[in-house]
Amino acid sequence: MISFKEIQDAHNRIQPFIHRTPVLTNYSLNEMTGADLYFKCENFQKVGAFKIRGATNTVLQLSENELSRGVVTASSGNHGAALAMAVSKLGGKTKVVMPKNTPKIKVNNVERNGGKIIWCEPNQSSREKTLKTVLEESGGVLVHPYNNERIIAGQGTAAKELLEDYPDLDCIVSPVSGGGLLSGSIISAKSLNFDIQVFGAEPKEADDAFRSLKMGDIQSNETTNTICDGLRAQIGSITFPIIQEKVDRIITVSEKEIIESMKLIWERMKIIVEPSSTITLGAVLNEKELFNGKKVGLILSGGNVDLSTLPF
Amino acid sequence: MISFKEIQDAHNRIQPFIHRTPVLTNYSLNEMTGADLYFKCENFQKVGAFKIRGATNTVLQLSENELSRGVVTASSGNHGAALAMAVSKLGGKTKVVMPKNTPKIKVNNVERNGGKIIWCEPNQSSREKTLKTVLEESGGVLVHPYNNERIIAGQGTAAKELLEDYPDLDCIVSPVSGGGLLSGSIISAKSLNFDIQVFGAEPKEADDAFRSLKMGDIQSNETTNTICDGLRAQIGSITFPIIQEKVDRIITVSEKEIIESMKLIWERMKIIVEPSSTITLGAVLNEKELFNGKKVGLILSGGNVDLSTLPF
Repeated sequence: MISFKEIQDAHNRIQPFIHRTPVLTNYSLNEMTGADLYFKCENFQKVGAFKIRGATNTVLQLSENELSRGVVTASSGNHGAALAMAVSKLGGKTKVVMPKNTPKIKVNNVERNGGKIIWCEPNQSSREKTLKTVLEESGGVLVHPYNNERIIAGQGTAAKELLEDYPDLDCIVSPVSGGGLLSGSIISAKSLNFDIQVFGAEPKEADDAFRSLKMGDIQSNETTNTICDGLRAQIGSITFPIIQEKVDRIITVSEKEIIESMKLIWERMKIIVEPSSTITLGAVLNEKELFNGKKVGLILSGGNVDLSTLPF
Repeated sequence: MISFKEIQDAHNRIQPFIHRTPVLTNYSLNEMTGADLYFKCENFQKVGAFKIRGATNTVLQLSENELSRGVVTASSGNHGAALAMAVSKLGGKTKVVMPKNTPKIKVNNVERNGGKIIWCEPNQSSREKTLKTVLEESGGVLVHPYNNERIIAGQGTAAKELLEDYPDLDCIVSPVSGGGLLSGSIISAKSLNFDIQVFGAEPKEADDAFRSLKMGDIQSNETTNTICDGLRAQIGSITFPIIQEKVDRIITVSEKEIIESMKLIWERMKIIVEPSSTITLGAVLNEKELFNGKKVGLILSGGNVDLSTLPF
């Protein structure tokens, strides 16, 4: 398992290339939840998502030879754009295997940052098969979106910043998909504060992490029929053991609750966040008693939303 | 004409009751415009708009007798909600004359802050007639949304904060409707920096300020067929002389340009702002040569948007 030292090293490495994003509070959402909420706004991060943290940490550690062979990944969007941005800055090329149902804004973000897209079907097996083919044909270096220790160390820097700004949080809620952000957040949070609780927020419609914890080993998603286009991946073999050992709980959230929490954040906080991020508020609203009277950090992971296909 | 001293006094008076809103910058919008843009984010202000500044400044100066009679206004929304909030805090009651086509979020904002709505038709004559009736019947005190020196002094505090944070701006762009924000911004800006330019941004579809300047006296709006629901009022008899004497120019912006600028700010900056605010970016994009290479302050006046009726 990676250590907090690796997250500290990652933070030193990537700081010149990322924003230190603000933490926002909102009076009316505090009233509504009965908790003190601290929103870590990674929607304001470069490429509009926390993914630039892990991507930058990984790319900065590639050798010249690796970089010259080109970088390859599979991504529902934000990791692809982040990787393309990080690689482009060092003069390299990126190929991104992307499901056909990816929102247009995320497709554009990959292309704007110099990435080349290779389409796959929107399921795990097509994603893996297409990725394998691209890797074999190109000889490029795989940078997995989450099942990679350098990625996890990078993603853990968001919770580190949040706790540097607000050391007395009682708990942190992070979205969970492949588990990079959640496992990184767990390592940062539990290293900086022994007593802190860390919760994962997951769509009921793609609840592989929840079921994997229950069963004791990695389960596949039975459906990925969720508006959270960033939360359809399957928990990884490196991320799962960290989560299994240390997460306090995975809270599953319905599509209706995700959309309601999205509308609340947009209307009350006047910021644009993806449903994959607002699920954290959905989890708090869902479990009011658990969070009542607590200081709660919520990681708003990204803000890349197709404005032409909003759910309200 | 009111002096900068009155804006300073207003600022001291209202500071405990308002947010000092942040100023945001955005790399990709700077690239696109060829200017350095500084966005004063009044969308993050209490009630979601700068209007709380003028309303608070006015209400804090009412006598007990005036407050006990109740406060009355006519407003397309944000002023009404702001006034209701300021009056409620002092234990008073507010009646708001409001056009029937006001966005629902602004109606809800008035009601949530304890204001009572009296509907009128969406035109200047119905607005004035209804207001007169309500004033006569209730015996309440009128707090006009813009044609009032205390309101102007309050609104001028937004530009004052912006220039305290960024003293070397070359110019400021403010939306213009009734002229409270623009005239207050002019007094603050030209008092703090003799050489600064101040521009008004106005919809082509409600261009009374532009035509009033051209003709030398106040003109009515021929149409108010604009998406900018906050910019449909007619320039006032107190605000117009200030604008006439000191504004550098009014820039008119088409509906298409307003919507494009709204989409740009939402997508790139990840913040929610009303079209009545994004018109300032529309003006900069419209007159690129005027702003090229300059440091430009843009007042994003509010963020109350009906999410169910977006133009994209």
